[in-house]
Amino acid sequence: MDKLHNELKKEFQLERLILFSDAVFAIAITLLVIELKVPEIERSELTDGKLLQALGHMIPKFFGFIISFMFIGIYWTVHHRLFGYVVNYTPKLLRLNLFFLFAVALMPFSTAFYSEYVMKHVLTPVIFYTGNIILLGIFNLLMWLHIGNPKNNLSEGLTQADVRYSSFRAILVPALFTIFAFVYLKSPLLASYLPISIPVIMRLVKKNHERKNKSLPTEKN
Amino acid sequence: MDKLHNELKKEFQLERLILFSDAVFAIAITLLVIELKVPEIERSELTDGKLLQALGHMIPKFFGFIISFMFIGIYWTVHHRLFGYVVNYTPKLLRLNLFFLFAVALMPFSTAFYSEYVMKHVLTPVIFYTGNIILLGIFNLLMWLHIGNPKNNLSEGLTQADVRYSSFRAILVPALFTIFAFVYLKSPLLASYLPISIPVIMRLVKKNHERKNKSLPTEKN
Amino acid sequence: MDKLHNELKKEFQLERLILFSDAVFAIAITLLVIELKVPEIERSELTDGKLLQALGHMIPKFFGFIISFMFIGIYWTVHHRLFGYVVNYTPKLLRLNLFFLFAVALMPFSTAFYSEYVMKHVLTPVIFYTGNIILLGIFNLLMWLHIGNPKNNLSEGLTQADVRYSSFRAILVPALFTIFAFVYLKSPLLASYLPISIPVIMRLVKKNHERKNKSLPTEKN
Amino acid sequence: MDKLHNELKKEFQLERLILFSDAVFAIAITLLVIELKVPEIERSELTDGKLLQALGHMIPKFFGFIISFMFIGIYWTVHHRLFGYVVNYTPKLLRLNLFFLFAVALMPFSTAFYSEYVMKHVLTPVIFYTGNIILLGIFNLLMWLHIGNPKNNLSEGLTQADVRYSSFRAILVPALFTIFAFVYLKSPLLASYLPISIPVIMRLVKKNHERKNKSLPTEKN
Repeated sequence: MDKLHNELKKEFQLERLILFSDAVFAIAITLLVIELKVPEIERSELTDGKLLQALGHMIPKFFGFIISFMFIGIYWTVHHRLFGYVVNYTPKLLRLNLFFLFAVALMPFSTAFYSEYVMKHVLTPVIFYTGNIILLGIFNLLMWLHIGNPKNNLSEGLTQADVRYSSFRAILVPALFTIFAFVYLKSPLLASYLPISIPVIMRLVKKNHERKNKSLPTEKN
Repeated sequence: MDKLHNELKKEFQLERLILFSDAVFAIAITLLVIELKVPEIERSELTDGKLLQALGHMIPKFFGFIISFMFIGIYWTVHHRLFGYVVNYTPKLLRLNLFFLFAVALMPFSTAFYSEYVMKHVLTPVIFYTGNIILLGIFNLLMWLHIGNPKNNLSEGLTQADVRYSSFRAILVPALFTIFAFVYLKSPLLASYLPISIPVIMRLVKKNHERKNKSLPTEKN
Repeated sequence: MDKLHNELKKEFQLERLILFSDAVFAIAITLLVIELKVPEIERSELTDGKLLQALGHMIPKFFGFIISFMFIGIYWTVHHRLFGYVVNYTPKLLRLNLFFLFAVALMPFSTAFYSEYVMKHVLTPVIFYTGNIILLGIFNLLMWLHIGNPKNNLSEGLTQADVRYSSFRAILVPALFTIFAFVYLKSPLLASYLPISIPVIMRLVKKNHERKNKSLPTEKN
Repeated sequence: MDKLHNELKKEFQLERLILFSDAVFAIAITLLVIELKVPEIERSELTDGKLLQALGHMIPKFFGFIISFMFIGIYWTVHHRLFGYVVNYTPKLLRLNLFFLFAVALMPFSTAFYSEYVMKHVLTPVIFYTGNIILLGIFNLLMWLHIGNPKNNLSEGLTQADVRYSSFRAILVPALFTIFAFVYLKSPLLASYLPISIPVIMRLVKKNHERKNKSLPTEKN
């Protein structure tokens, strides 16, 4: 009975870590909208034409909102999949998770900075945004390696092949973004559309991984 | 034992999806208040008359706050009912849910845009707001169809009649809003009061649905 | 087994309602801080004296922050106690809870409005704030009456004496605030300190209630 | 059966207290980013040099963001550890927890105030920030003493040695910050780097505590 109680307590402590992370994700993803400011037009000049023009100027902001919503959504999904394997925690996992959440919480700022200047021929915001994506990737990678390390005894049902695949995915997104940053040097317009390709590439990678593992029937997200 | 453990893990993963969604709903519904700015009046001119006048000018904002609170509340209730049937999840459900939450997270902006200009004879904000409601409706519909599809094996206790009824409701709100947008062309004042009728219409539809199904005693919200 | 599953599902649906409410409380209570703006002082004029003076001008804001934090905290505690009795839910309970949360979400605005003008001899913000407290009280009262009604079969372990006591408490706070609003007409300074007395009065009422019921050993918050 | 039900209800009430706290932590930690404003540069003057210069001026803000993220993260970890021992609650624990959360919710303001003026030779913001850290420490200490008091019967598996160690840690952070405030009088630049030493000092204290207790194998964070 006492052992069961301890077991439940430990599981609740783990759940708490996860739900705290979810709350940070949820707030960061919803705070993105704060950067969308209602266009202000004087009453004397107010026409639908002016409003549409104002919305037109906001297109990079909407774009940034959508891209970052997508990214935080993807990383939430990854976090969801990662902790689907976790059955225990260490101080180090708490710490890595906090660093990861730091990169998540920074996203609304990076997004605002990026989408304010994306079409204006400057490189700094693109590098800053890419840096944020790289931070997300690094801490995500470190978390996979930490829970995937059999010595730490933190996970259940996670094979070394899964760890390798997930680590590859964790590195892939920052790598693609770094390439996009170089494309941006040549063609900002093209580069600003490239992030949309990421979910497609991720899906292809996943399909390929699943085909290779189709002998093993597993349920994943 | 191991099977029970897996079952519990799967259920927790599903709970996590739901509680993450709840957090997004809760933040979006509470962020609405950020658009209500305290009226600023110079100390030398400060009287209760001036303050009441300033509050009077804020009536469309309060109205927008109330309408959007009501909508996010309604969609939370629908989400609550929908996931009351769900017993499993797929990557597609995660994705549809994220798209749905995207439309929820956009509501504070749409509301602010709508209530800034609602009484000023422009159509763009009304169309934008209606577009947001349509997005909510579409992703809600797709979620009902996805979990209601018996092949996906995602739900328990959800009859095809329930799916049809819920799909109808999912379409009804955007349809009504599209009608209201046309009414707005003729009479903005009338159109701005129409959203209040939605809970009443929804209730009538529900009552009618329940009367038709009264032979089957079910508990629903 | 199936019955247990349904029971657990129903309990989770109820938990979801509660945790969604908690998130709204948590956001509203934390958003209060957004109204505290860092005082801006030109570099050339920057001294500790100027900063202290600026902080001095913010005293009503800090005061509003503390009072509202206290109120949202108190109402969270009441909500916590109320749902400690609830074992089932109805569409009406979902609705009443949403109305209650509406009043909670409005608090950051009411607080900002109140604390902006509290020391400036105008009555409107005081009435507005009192109105918000009255809304909280009314929906709180309606929730106690709804779950306390034996016909609804929603609660467990809730005696009619508890319902009467909790209803009295729900009315007490708005009643005290209405009195404070009248005191404000005579002495704004005195009235602005009165809210601090509320926890003390509530404690006295509770102690008195507990003394009367001391024959029945119960654990409450 | 009924006793089990009551036990589960009580546990859920405790969980609710914890998850509400988590939400406040999550919001406070994510709201920190709101203070990071995108630098605004006129289009005609926009160069990467100007942007980098603007980011350079934001270094104290980034620094404040990182330090406060670290602190809220540390206090969340402490809260997580503390409630890992708690098996029951009292009205007093609810109250102490609310006071503690008050100090957490104030952090975004204190951080903004501190990082706005940290490099400008004024003492007020440093004292304000230190005051906030002291508040966190005091309520943290009171919570440890309250749950650690065997008479209250609130905890399980918490030895008096743990309580002493945790109380010491609760006092240590504010004590270090008070020292840093005095260092600030002499050298603001040095003082602004000192907070980074806190996790290192905490780790040393922990390692030392664990060495002394290594005979007792315990799992902690």
